[in-house]
Amino acid sequence: MTNNSKPLQAADIETPCIVIDTDTMERNIVRMAEAASCRKVKLRPHTKTHKMPWIAHRQLEAGAAGITVAKVSEAEVMAEHGITDIFIAFPLVSPSKIERALSLSRRIRLIVGVDSFEGAQRLAEIAGRHGHVLEVRLEIDTGLRRSGVLFEQAPALAAQIHGMKELRLTGIYTFRGAVYQHKATLDLQTAGEEEGRIMAGMAERLREQGIPVADVSVGSTPTGAYAAAVEGVTEIRPGTYVFNDRMQARFGVCGLDDCAGRVWATVVSRPSADLAVIDGGSKTFATDVQPNTEPLLLQGFGYIEGLEDAVLERLSEEHGMIRLGPQSQLANPQVGDRLRIIPNHICSTVNLHNQVLFRRGDAYEPMTVLGRGKLE
Amino acid sequence: MTNNSKPLQAADIETPCIVIDTDTMERNIVRMAEAASCRKVKLRPHTKTHKMPWIAHRQLEAGAAGITVAKVSEAEVMAEHGITDIFIAFPLVSPSKIERALSLSRRIRLIVGVDSFEGAQRLAEIAGRHGHVLEVRLEIDTGLRRSGVLFEQAPALAAQIHGMKELRLTGIYTFRGAVYQHKATLDLQTAGEEEGRIMAGMAERLREQGIPVADVSVGSTPTGAYAAAVEGVTEIRPGTYVFNDRMQARFGVCGLDDCAGRVWATVVSRPSADLAVIDGGSKTFATDVQPNTEPLLLQGFGYIEGLEDAVLERLSEEHGMIRLGPQSQLANPQVGDRLRIIPNHICSTVNLHNQVLFRRGDAYEPMTVLGRGKLE
Repeated sequence: MTNNSKPLQAADIETPCIVIDTDTMERNIVRMAEAASCRKVKLRPHTKTHKMPWIAHRQLEAGAAGITVAKVSEAEVMAEHGITDIFIAFPLVSPSKIERALSLSRRIRLIVGVDSFEGAQRLAEIAGRHGHVLEVRLEIDTGLRRSGVLFEQAPALAAQIHGMKELRLTGIYTFRGAVYQHKATLDLQTAGEEEGRIMAGMAERLREQGIPVADVSVGSTPTGAYAAAVEGVTEIRPGTYVFNDRMQARFGVCGLDDCAGRVWATVVSRPSADLAVIDGGSKTFATDVQPNTEPLLLQGFGYIEGLEDAVLERLSEEHGMIRLGPQSQLANPQVGDRLRIIPNHICSTVNLHNQVLFRRGDAYEPMTVLGRGKLE
Repeated sequence: MTNNSKPLQAADIETPCIVIDTDTMERNIVRMAEAASCRKVKLRPHTKTHKMPWIAHRQLEAGAAGITVAKVSEAEVMAEHGITDIFIAFPLVSPSKIERALSLSRRIRLIVGVDSFEGAQRLAEIAGRHGHVLEVRLEIDTGLRRSGVLFEQAPALAAQIHGMKELRLTGIYTFRGAVYQHKATLDLQTAGEEEGRIMAGMAERLREQGIPVADVSVGSTPTGAYAAAVEGVTEIRPGTYVFNDRMQARFGVCGLDDCAGRVWATVVSRPSADLAVIDGGSKTFATDVQPNTEPLLLQGFGYIEGLEDAVLERLSEEHGMIRLGPQSQLANPQVGDRLRIIPNHICSTVNLHNQVLFRRGDAYEPMTVLGRGKLE
């Protein structure tokens, strides 16, 4: 853990900032590792949530088999810092990125996502030029309509990829994300088991075609443990669990006290009894999980500790407007007071910050979010 | 203009990234400077949009009288790079930030926003300790319910602040933002003139009280030129105009060809005829200006050049899902194709990126967004 300046005391911390409670994070890391281990599946956490190599190492030490990233640049940062088993769960199609992936794959175990014949051809062509065989996994759409080959087209595409000698197709993966969709059920167990069964079934179909599918990789923080229990699933890829957030708490995956991350903000203005303005807006809190949208119907952009009926209702770029209910008006936060707010979505919130503070006891260590903001 | 690596050719650019057309930016800078100059008001652009000192210098060279920032850290970055007249349009209440502002104010002309008695006391106390007089402007709420003293309470607060010998109250300011509010009119002229009249009237009231209000600062990109035409307004503070964006084009402030900034993204997947997936999601495109919300009712998260009936409908963190209409399906973008997308809100989109590319002819210079992501 290489910190980038000396630890701070709470009083010295400038707001707005993100503070991670290290003990809570450690507990989250261990819990998910145990959930995977007792179901006998591999855990390959998605590091999009933290983008920090030292946390990836903690996840590996706790039992993860490797990590997942979304970008070549993130894989490069993680590999530079000693991570040796990385899955880029994203279709790489630009020649320069494929070149970079190939260069990485000579040094570490690198697996690359693929979801189309064109994409596979691009990978194969460049791998062939390097005289190298690239390990790939086929991404399958299981209903999210994101990347991923359409389910019914997967067997044909898998056969084509299996036939490319420059590629070694070792697994299939999906991000179903059903519970995140507005129309979806909030029954995580049903969602997780469905996801697992669909993919385990596909793996069987592909094996019957003679494709030796070893890895069947599914799952997210809300569904991972349930999907892991399905026979045939070999790996889960949750990300958010490392810190957790208000959205996960609302899903019932964790309690608010399992949320390791809080935005610290200062009350800068109290123009009226029902309004407190803080020094954090849409450049501090991510706005991708909007208030009052299905399925979660979260009120506001975060959960404000200690002010139960206060709602972080509106954000401009650097201002956050908190509507104070009757109880909060009695509590009467003053100009200069600090508030601690659990953001709706920690992954995209961390992505807004260059540095994050890690609390251990009374000390707060600023650490750089090494994998964020890369030009690519 | 200190670039941080050698210029790239278009083919070498990795996506996702932001490309700014330098000529369009220059034209935008000159136009707003002329709009202010011909109405005989000062222009003090808000640099929140770009956060880059070299662009602030271009704005000053074109006629701006100073700049506006939202944070002490931004003021520090700008001052380090030679900007000598800075207004922090935000209430500073933390002792450490006030100390930093005071330290800056010994080197440059620094004006600090204030909107409460408590805030003014904090400023005065620390200024007094340094034996220094701090120039301040009173922020007045003109309907946005953000920071700013309530309109009817402004005269009493102004009198109190005017009586503090450690503070020198030289002006008043507001960000009315009426046109950004859901319920607001889209008639920019009416909105701008109202904003100007309200504040000019308040300045007169304060002068009648014996407070020598010199600066009456109003306006945003949509309303700035109209507010500037009102007798008694002395300064406008637009920000977004430097790049413009889809939201401003929808307001009718500019055309889409006046938008200097585009996100470049690559099609990574074409799972079906009506769906194209790009390599940019909510970590690439800001989500603070949501689709289908009033008053603008923008479709999707950006305007996709050349694909008129395509909608960037959904974002996950690193994926953007584009629904292709009949025409776009005929155009049939291929895996590997690059798309150029004008984001809904350029300010918060730039804030997601560590670097931005500036196009001059065939060359693309990567430049660091120096003022973003500061730990504070």
